[in-house]
Amino acid sequence: MPSKDLHFKKILKDFKVKVDFEIRKQFDIIVNENKDENPLVAESLEYSKHLILSGGKRLRGALLYYGYLGAGGKDKKSVLKAAAAAEIGHLFVLMHDDIVDHGTLRHNVETLNKKYADPKYSKANPIHFGNSMALIIGDMIYAIMNKIILEAKFDQKSLLSGLLQLHKVSITTAIGQIQDISIGNKAIVSSKEVLAMYKNKTAKYTFEGPLRIGMILAGCTDKKTLTEVSDYAIPIGISFQIQDDILGIFGNEEQLGKSIVSDIEEGKNTLLFVKALELSSSEQKKMLRAIFGKKNLSQKEILSFRKILVETGALEYAKKISRDHLNKGKEKINASSLSKQTKKMLTELIQYLEKREL
Amino acid sequence: MPSKDLHFKKILKDFKVKVDFEIRKQFDIIVNENKDENPLVAESLEYSKHLILSGGKRLRGALLYYGYLGAGGKDKKSVLKAAAAAEIGHLFVLMHDDIVDHGTLRHNVETLNKKYADPKYSKANPIHFGNSMALIIGDMIYAIMNKIILEAKFDQKSLLSGLLQLHKVSITTAIGQIQDISIGNKAIVSSKEVLAMYKNKTAKYTFEGPLRIGMILAGCTDKKTLTEVSDYAIPIGISFQIQDDILGIFGNEEQLGKSIVSDIEEGKNTLLFVKALELSSSEQKKMLRAIFGKKNLSQKEILSFRKILVETGALEYAKKISRDHLNKGKEKINASSLSKQTKKMLTELIQYLEKREL
Repeated sequence: MPSKDLHFKKILKDFKVKVDFEIRKQFDIIVNENKDENPLVAESLEYSKHLILSGGKRLRGALLYYGYLGAGGKDKKSVLKAAAAAEIGHLFVLMHDDIVDHGTLRHNVETLNKKYADPKYSKANPIHFGNSMALIIGDMIYAIMNKIILEAKFDQKSLLSGLLQLHKVSITTAIGQIQDISIGNKAIVSSKEVLAMYKNKTAKYTFEGPLRIGMILAGCTDKKTLTEVSDYAIPIGISFQIQDDILGIFGNEEQLGKSIVSDIEEGKNTLLFVKALELSSSEQKKMLRAIFGKKNLSQKEILSFRKILVETGALEYAKKISRDHLNKGKEKINASSLSKQTKKMLTELIQYLEKREL
Repeated sequence: MPSKDLHFKKILKDFKVKVDFEIRKQFDIIVNENKDENPLVAESLEYSKHLILSGGKRLRGALLYYGYLGAGGKDKKSVLKAAAAAEIGHLFVLMHDDIVDHGTLRHNVETLNKKYADPKYSKANPIHFGNSMALIIGDMIYAIMNKIILEAKFDQKSLLSGLLQLHKVSITTAIGQIQDISIGNKAIVSSKEVLAMYKNKTAKYTFEGPLRIGMILAGCTDKKTLTEVSDYAIPIGISFQIQDDILGIFGNEEQLGKSIVSDIEEGKNTLLFVKALELSSSEQKKMLRAIFGKKNLSQKEILSFRKILVETGALEYAKKISRDHLNKGKEKINASSLSKQTKKMLTELIQYLEKREL
């Protein structure tokens, strides 16, 4: 029998099977529509399907799905479509992020921009061709996401409110992305700026948004209830992002499906790094800056980088901030008037995050 | 008194004043929401407003607006919002196109990617920073477009159908863009391929889509009526694109708001160029290929290029195909059972296109 605190992990695992079936189905429809007249479009959508099905926890889809059920929604078929759409929308975000971050690998599979950065498609400028493909296919996938939700059979009022919420979340996500690239080009960055970016780019996008969209699709219009979910989801999401940052530098590669060094090589301004700079001696600062953003890091450089994060106390600090945010979410959920079913799921999500190996 | 065949030009001019007021209002809302917490976001949206208000015929917005009224729609306030949204959605398309095409100027104003390709924002890679900004702000603007339409007060059923139509059009537009970049990287391109791309990228996007969305928002669900509009709009749209190609090489710069040579320098595979290659002698072919896609063209090179388009008969051919498509649209509209008001507007649009100076 699985232990209680692994329950959310099992929920996610079971949900992934169901939602992946729906994701596959949706991609097959559009690939089929294009395979005769537009072979390159069909090929790139087939590859997009391969990419999305190669990994991912389906956290966003699951939160939308269980948010809907917890709020009393009954139409499991329609909400599974909406959850698949949320995951397909996430693929759009990742595709465009990979252009911005020069990403080449996700879940051990070449990103779309990398796949099409090939002289086979463009002799003159393969890298630009790859980026253009990821840009346009990303845009197409966002429209496909909308189409899937619009074709699901929710009641009209809830569907319109759910879509409005979704596009508000997309606007906020873009704000977070602008904050991200803006931070990436600053000489000095504060923890406050990083946390503000995490709020928009992760907490609202991955946690608050899907939960609220699911609840709204189920017919929830009560402002107090929706605010209670936000009060829970935002600290939880910030905690999750900080955990991801720690895993991105101290985790193991197999688990992540991408190179451990990529966060360091990409020069990602995480809370961890920003805090380490703040707390380090001038010699440590010099070493951090020399390694940060450098390509083809040696094992020695990675170990030195990690050592400074530990010695300055930045790692402990990040763990503490992550824990504090989890506890804040826990308090909020206990004090809330959400349905028993929703409370149970959100509490299990916290237990799952508490058990992540950092 | 203006002559009858200038009527559509006047419709567009009057409509532009109204819709630009709404566009400005919508941008001011979102700029205001961001100016305190996210100055860079506010600044780039303010610049986007400046870009969109610096030019453009508002053809898409007008077709949506008059499609709605022609189909019996009564809520002028809501449809003006939707028309503004269509134009704001067009800004998203242009922003992303400018990344793909390395565009730097529209309506005599620097494109967003060019404005932010500045060491002031990123010392390490200003061009990439400019492209990233245009990518993310473009995505945000597409979400803003959705939000504006969702907040307009249409009846729920029509609104949902209109949105579904809109996202189908977005998918088709992306297919046209993929066809475009794919053609751009081929050694030999046929007229048929170019016309297929024009159908998706221009005719469906600029003509069929807005008309149908407007009619659907007005409550039109009749398949025959919608098909009649498509049968008219697609040949008209193809004709319009061919006219644009001709203007892009033989027009005057002031009228276009961008450099005349840009179509040649960008290496745009227009029907005009593809046909000229097909009809040219081996010496002409060599010269065409030498000038096509070359930067910093001399006046002499531009004149040689134009001369070959004339001498091979490619210009006459393009003009004929454009005329044939216009005539086809005319036949379709005369035979249709569309409302008197819609028929009048669509006939005037044809008269307007017939009078464009090529």
